[in-house]
Amino acid sequence: MFKPHTYITRRDRLRENLSSGLVLLPGNEDSAMNYRANTYHFRQDSSFLYFFGPDQPGLAGLIDIDENRDSLFGDDASLDDIIWMGQRPTVKSLADRSGVDRSFPMAELDKVLEHAVSSGRKIHYLPPYRTDKTLRIQNWLGLHHHSEVSKKVSEELIRAVVKLRSVKSEEEIEEIEKAVDIAYEMHTTAMKMARPGVYEREIAGRIEGISLSHGNPVSFPVILSVEGQILHNHDHGNILKEGDLMVTDAGSETGLRYASDITRTVPVGGKFLPRQRIIYEIVLTALQEAIRSVRPGIPYRDVHLQSAAIIAGGLKEAGLMQGDIHEAVQLGAHALFFPHGIGHMMGLDVHDMEDLGEDFVGYDDEIKRSEQFGLAFLRMGRRLQKGFALTIEPGIYFIPALIDKWKSEKKFNGFINYSELESWKNFGGIRIEDDVLVTEYGSRLLGKPVPKTIEEIEEFML
Amino acid sequence: MFKPHTYITRRDRLRENLSSGLVLLPGNEDSAMNYRANTYHFRQDSSFLYFFGPDQPGLAGLIDIDENRDSLFGDDASLDDIIWMGQRPTVKSLADRSGVDRSFPMAELDKVLEHAVSSGRKIHYLPPYRTDKTLRIQNWLGLHHHSEVSKKVSEELIRAVVKLRSVKSEEEIEEIEKAVDIAYEMHTTAMKMARPGVYEREIAGRIEGISLSHGNPVSFPVILSVEGQILHNHDHGNILKEGDLMVTDAGSETGLRYASDITRTVPVGGKFLPRQRIIYEIVLTALQEAIRSVRPGIPYRDVHLQSAAIIAGGLKEAGLMQGDIHEAVQLGAHALFFPHGIGHMMGLDVHDMEDLGEDFVGYDDEIKRSEQFGLAFLRMGRRLQKGFALTIEPGIYFIPALIDKWKSEKKFNGFINYSELESWKNFGGIRIEDDVLVTEYGSRLLGKPVPKTIEEIEEFML
Repeated sequence: MFKPHTYITRRDRLRENLSSGLVLLPGNEDSAMNYRANTYHFRQDSSFLYFFGPDQPGLAGLIDIDENRDSLFGDDASLDDIIWMGQRPTVKSLADRSGVDRSFPMAELDKVLEHAVSSGRKIHYLPPYRTDKTLRIQNWLGLHHHSEVSKKVSEELIRAVVKLRSVKSEEEIEEIEKAVDIAYEMHTTAMKMARPGVYEREIAGRIEGISLSHGNPVSFPVILSVEGQILHNHDHGNILKEGDLMVTDAGSETGLRYASDITRTVPVGGKFLPRQRIIYEIVLTALQEAIRSVRPGIPYRDVHLQSAAIIAGGLKEAGLMQGDIHEAVQLGAHALFFPHGIGHMMGLDVHDMEDLGEDFVGYDDEIKRSEQFGLAFLRMGRRLQKGFALTIEPGIYFIPALIDKWKSEKKFNGFINYSELESWKNFGGIRIEDDVLVTEYGSRLLGKPVPKTIEEIEEFML
Repeated sequence: MFKPHTYITRRDRLRENLSSGLVLLPGNEDSAMNYRANTYHFRQDSSFLYFFGPDQPGLAGLIDIDENRDSLFGDDASLDDIIWMGQRPTVKSLADRSGVDRSFPMAELDKVLEHAVSSGRKIHYLPPYRTDKTLRIQNWLGLHHHSEVSKKVSEELIRAVVKLRSVKSEEEIEEIEKAVDIAYEMHTTAMKMARPGVYEREIAGRIEGISLSHGNPVSFPVILSVEGQILHNHDHGNILKEGDLMVTDAGSETGLRYASDITRTVPVGGKFLPRQRIIYEIVLTALQEAIRSVRPGIPYRDVHLQSAAIIAGGLKEAGLMQGDIHEAVQLGAHALFFPHGIGHMMGLDVHDMEDLGEDFVGYDDEIKRSEQFGLAFLRMGRRLQKGFALTIEPGIYFIPALIDKWKSEKKFNGFINYSELESWKNFGGIRIEDDVLVTEYGSRLLGKPVPKTIEEIEEFML
């Protein structure tokens, strides 16, 4: 955990951003795999971590806006718990570390909330993304049906939390850099292992093991595939062969649960083929130009569109697109090759705060989400601020199902050279992704840089 | 998946064991880590796997007892799904592999169940262990409150499923042996890594990575600790030092999701100390004698009590227990050192069918669960049958919190030599566990044997 001061300050700032009532922040519970006692790696709720900090199940925090006091609820270990699971810190000691001077058994929370409900106080909570939390909130607030829980979520709280969590402090940035350094180890190991005859799962398992060896789970399921055209491919059944491109999109968490998210695409065996070099250079240019453009005040949508234009321009030079490139981008023709967004916020969640609502996190009154195929997948369009941590992750993909569909519909015939495209359909995909911090005048790369240019990768894989 | 015939036969046998109605077997859905789209490794429901087989989310099976027909429900991938997650088999093709000739979109299931409810048909389902499944059942059956779901669970179905899943077929045994072979690799790697100066997490991460490298998650969270006296210690923060004992309790799943569960205890650096040898030999004898005793017809409770007697006898020789050993075991004095059960069933779940109810799985009308401390934790007491797959896992632990409590209560003063015990309180714990199959006349060890005797371990760690 950070020092108590950090959590005290965060709660005080939250209070300043809310009018009145109680803020209920339940931590996460263990999650069952195939029976209750067989649980996944525990993952604490990120907003609970942000405002309170303790990384164990069975806790809930309560922030009283009106009375200016905070409480932590939880039960101490029983003797049976100690025998089976070991000693754990008392709730009182956890409260101390959170800078909270009031701690109570969990049963007290039921009473406090029952009383608050009956006195008509406003109880703010965030959208639950796990069903067990939905039911706990249903029970706490005495709601008749679980469907009422989502209707009573506090938009005021969402806005206040997004405002605070969006801007990262020095100590948060240090954590993200540690997470990138673990990702460095994961990615360079993957590069060294990318030889013909190896199964994807051997590499995916090894690099997830590296993250776990640091005591931390991966920040999201490892994407590692020679079928890089499948954007979130979690299947690892292929065997690597000469001529394949391997896309690895993977990151780790730190002990405090901050995330990294890095993607590299490397040639199996270590040498890029001529066509692979062409596409790789386009994606790399898009990435480098995007890093150059990131600065406070620029809408991230503009950075996305700039990348789209670089990609479309490069593909035109390669003979795969044609016509007026700016018009093509405006109409969304490039999205055949680049169907996702340029990046997203990152922090305690790898897609930071995603379940608070992407439109609260990535958009605002000024910049609304587009409905156009491709641009609609951009998770973040709004103007950047100093202290935002972002991924930048352009890519070019050859997705046979999408190409066939558009071709049959004669979609964007004036911009896409479908006849040339035929011989590229088995190319796969290339994505390159770095993590950056928006600084006062521009941006800086976070963590230890993973080999990225064609020369760096080919030399590293020798 | 197994051949369709396997699933057809299993469903037919289930039908023979039920009187009438519909059996609803919903598969599992993805489980959220810190937001909905960030999911844990998918784990299918084991009973769904057993009777239908497909290992992906978004499916449900329905077995009609009266009309003698089965159906699989699910939705095929959309183009967006294909772009983001890749092609996946159609529901029709999954049904074919399950030997089911009727497949429908998921929305059809709502209608079928609504009709069944309104015509008053019995709908059998198993106890849900994930909250999202509780809510889906609540919605399907039109129940007013989620608490009604557990009340309407079908005990008839539980008994029928336990009866079938308890006895393993040849092809299931082959799977469990494959899982043990992966565990062999995990455990021998852990042994080689158990050197002073290494963090527990480095080894725990590496061996979980080995499981993942085979394409399969661990069958339960890795227990790996120099504080072996904590039975289910999932904390990996200690640094190994000379003189420590490292307990590793870990297993993998196979592609078809059968589990292994092996424990070894090894001396950090490779040489057992004199006191460690004494305790190790007692536990090893208990294990070997239990393996020798396992055969059809013997109550597993008796195997447990025999191990308890061997442990108590050994501890008496070591000067830690005293008095009449059989009386000590009868009264439960040995449970200070051996507070858990001798083992449990294993199969598609590492504690097989645990959430169908341990008392249905491990006990019956003849043999009821004890309430005595220690014996109460025995998950399985009933008579063994040919085809049962079991863990055998005796252990001896020195649990300071428990020793202090019993000592202060003067509990079993006549059986426990508390003054001698003082100098042993930092010993830690030793557990040794193998997986066995009950055969026609006895038992056989499953999978590749992991080094187990003191000589084997010391030689292997050289």
